[in-house]
Amino acid sequence: MSQKNACFLVIGNEVLSGRTKDANTQVLAKALNERGIRLLEVRVIPDIEDHIIRTVRECKASFDIVFTSGGIGPTHDDITTQCIAKAMGVPLILDEPSSKALEEHLGKERFNKACQKMAYLPQGATPIENKVSIAPGFSIENVHVMAGVPSIFAYMVSWLVPQLEAGVPLSSKSWHAPGLKEGQFADDLEALQHQFPSIDIGSYPYQLPDGVKGVALVAKGYDAQVVNDAAHTLHDLIVAYGQKPISGDPV
Amino acid sequence: MSQKNACFLVIGNEVLSGRTKDANTQVLAKALNERGIRLLEVRVIPDIEDHIIRTVRECKASFDIVFTSGGIGPTHDDITTQCIAKAMGVPLILDEPSSKALEEHLGKERFNKACQKMAYLPQGATPIENKVSIAPGFSIENVHVMAGVPSIFAYMVSWLVPQLEAGVPLSSKSWHAPGLKEGQFADDLEALQHQFPSIDIGSYPYQLPDGVKGVALVAKGYDAQVVNDAAHTLHDLIVAYGQKPISGDPV
Repeated sequence: MSQKNACFLVIGNEVLSGRTKDANTQVLAKALNERGIRLLEVRVIPDIEDHIIRTVRECKASFDIVFTSGGIGPTHDDITTQCIAKAMGVPLILDEPSSKALEEHLGKERFNKACQKMAYLPQGATPIENKVSIAPGFSIENVHVMAGVPSIFAYMVSWLVPQLEAGVPLSSKSWHAPGLKEGQFADDLEALQHQFPSIDIGSYPYQLPDGVKGVALVAKGYDAQVVNDAAHTLHDLIVAYGQKPISGDPV
Repeated sequence: MSQKNACFLVIGNEVLSGRTKDANTQVLAKALNERGIRLLEVRVIPDIEDHIIRTVRECKASFDIVFTSGGIGPTHDDITTQCIAKAMGVPLILDEPSSKALEEHLGKERFNKACQKMAYLPQGATPIENKVSIAPGFSIENVHVMAGVPSIFAYMVSWLVPQLEAGVPLSSKSWHAPGLKEGQFADDLEALQHQFPSIDIGSYPYQLPDGVKGVALVAKGYDAQVVNDAAHTLHDLIVAYGQKPISGDPV
């Protein structure tokens, strides 16, 4: 099985202004890990036409798969769909099934011009199902366009990702220990990375809300057996430095 | 006063794997808003040398200012500093004051080779103060390199950003209303955007943990008076649609 890579474009001023925190990256990342697709980059970009078009063109050429979130609602600042159409050089076409489903869901009176906009998709696109609020996302070439509202985004990911070609799933095992300090064991950890060159060994200092500090050690890779073996060695390394290893990540 | 733009590079596999959520973007965005610097893009990239070097070179040319977080600790997976040096084509040089401060902080025994690594900075860089754990960040050309640990990142931002050239601060006012639906008022909102072309009018659907859904309307721009006037009109728009406007964003 080959390992595809992916880029996720978070489209919207609200993350860049600090108004909201992006919650969608983690949802997508976990779904992609399970499906064996590697999330290699995330870009947060503003609701500016040139910026969106340039980024989509660049990323669809540089990565196997591109996912986007945000900007497909009914208001004037929702410009993602028209930008994707421009980036691909195709017109927007009414998707009849989406239009009917939306009209049925909203009722004739509420299905005004602004809401009808959500049933127009770039020519050649196929809809991504949205059981939450009916207005679809869409896939065109290697680009998958989804809503920014977290509950809708999560639904679309759960519908879409299992349909994508599967690769080898990412395995990950961690041990953490309060009181452990990164500087102490850095040399041993580097030796351990050399011992297991096919996987990634990571070291992540943390501080819990109650002030307790420690380090989490993570083994991650596409061979579950090697990840298990490395995690066992990480456990023993923590013991060797006089701390008590706790399975998993600190919560 | 001119308005500088900025790009923020979050360097680290842990966000891309879904292991952790990025908490630093919001901290930086808010500090930059106050200082009148516009955060125009965020990229999350992995701990891969080529990927870091290519991104730093591209972003330092495309944006006025670049900030980075992550990868400046003592372990083998902390490769940001050496990648920045390579991107700039300069060697790493021991920064004597940082080395002394770190040795004093850690004590002679704990100041091993791995920890000494944190006192090496690219030639021509100036240190960014770190009162939390002493190991410095650094500025070189238009690139500011900071730690990924949120408490240290926040300290470095609070130390660095007030020293950067100030622009016009971003003003923002919002009203939200439970029960409001985006599709209803999209046309009126677009007309309102045309009425206030110098600022951004945004519409953000939300769902609270208790299930209550609504929409937040935001006016944002660099002329505080125009932002105030537009926010007043947003308030009246919500009233016109039979809902009760609540000041600020939903919490």
